[in-house]
Amino acid sequence: MILSSEPKISSTTETMPDAHRMVQIANPSWVAELADWERQYSSDEERMRLALSLARENVLRDGAGPFGAAIFESDTGMLVAVGVNRVVPLNNSALHGEMVAFMLAQARLGSYTLGAPGMPRHEVVTSCEPCAMCLGATLWSGVRRLVWGASREDATRLNFDEGPVFPESYEYLETRGIEIVRGVCREESRAVLELYRSRSGEIYNG
Amino acid sequence: MILSSEPKISSTTETMPDAHRMVQIANPSWVAELADWERQYSSDEERMRLALSLARENVLRDGAGPFGAAIFESDTGMLVAVGVNRVVPLNNSALHGEMVAFMLAQARLGSYTLGAPGMPRHEVVTSCEPCAMCLGATLWSGVRRLVWGASREDATRLNFDEGPVFPESYEYLETRGIEIVRGVCREESRAVLELYRSRSGEIYNG
Repeated sequence: MILSSEPKISSTTETMPDAHRMVQIANPSWVAELADWERQYSSDEERMRLALSLARENVLRDGAGPFGAAIFESDTGMLVAVGVNRVVPLNNSALHGEMVAFMLAQARLGSYTLGAPGMPRHEVVTSCEPCAMCLGATLWSGVRRLVWGASREDATRLNFDEGPVFPESYEYLETRGIEIVRGVCREESRAVLELYRSRSGEIYNG
Repeated sequence: MILSSEPKISSTTETMPDAHRMVQIANPSWVAELADWERQYSSDEERMRLALSLARENVLRDGAGPFGAAIFESDTGMLVAVGVNRVVPLNNSALHGEMVAFMLAQARLGSYTLGAPGMPRHEVVTSCEPCAMCLGATLWSGVRRLVWGASREDATRLNFDEGPVFPESYEYLETRGIEIVRGVCREESRAVLELYRSRSGEIYNG
């Protein structure tokens, strides 16, 4: 079974091969050139431009999905974690930029929620409106604020499917105290999507 | 910044500390005792009972979330990957059982989709109705079939939040060719949720 062109999985072991029992998730090393861990990113636009630079470089350097995200402390503007889309490079459909950023932020803080008692308020700033998976993940992440750039319509124009997200989905998050900020630097965000299209990037969930 | 009780992040480095630049995801080692990689799980009930045994042992051995999932080849019933909820043990709010199973299945097959040309059809069988994140992830995973046991209402009774999932969400998946099978072994699935409640398990997204 499995793909006939794949190496055959041993049928004599009781468990999966070790190499397949763990998944590693990381950003590419070049994100260190863009993320400034000392800076106070003071406005939504400054925060978004970091997310956009991550998205842009992800296309230019790796030909990967045109999506980037960053987690900040809302009040201080200090950066906690960043994430770029790693679906194709790491063969993992869950690795949208927001997901990578959430996981790295929680690992850094040693907490499964960024909204634990005593923590400063956290927010996610993402280059494009989150898909259904990432919107759900936003709720579980513990952030209190979600800021996005390009819209679902902008992404759909590239044939990226955003999944089952409805106006009621956002109401659900807002009811639970998550502030939604839409369309920050939208034109710049759309330009990154267009850059990807112009380079014939793979639409991996179309 | 960060939690005052946490070790201070060095302020002299340009990048995040190495330990926080990567996330590792794995099942606990005991799943090897439950998963049979040689067997053909021939019915929905057989497949569900594996997911339920994973969920149950996750509670009994680790006090972790009462949720388990497995990926199968639909036609042969061969097991491809399993996942248990690792939110609390690994400090990662994305690690619902379905997410772990999707990621390990894709790693094993070396593909960001389980629906690539030439692959057999895959399905996910999960002990409880997926939350909003996992329903979105199901769409991106490439499975063609989603089978669940306990319902959203059963989970909500334990104060687990399932997020913004609506009837239209399922229609969205069905329109894209994903078959939904509801309530398989529901009473046994509910019993696992009750087991968790009886042991005063943490409701980590309530």
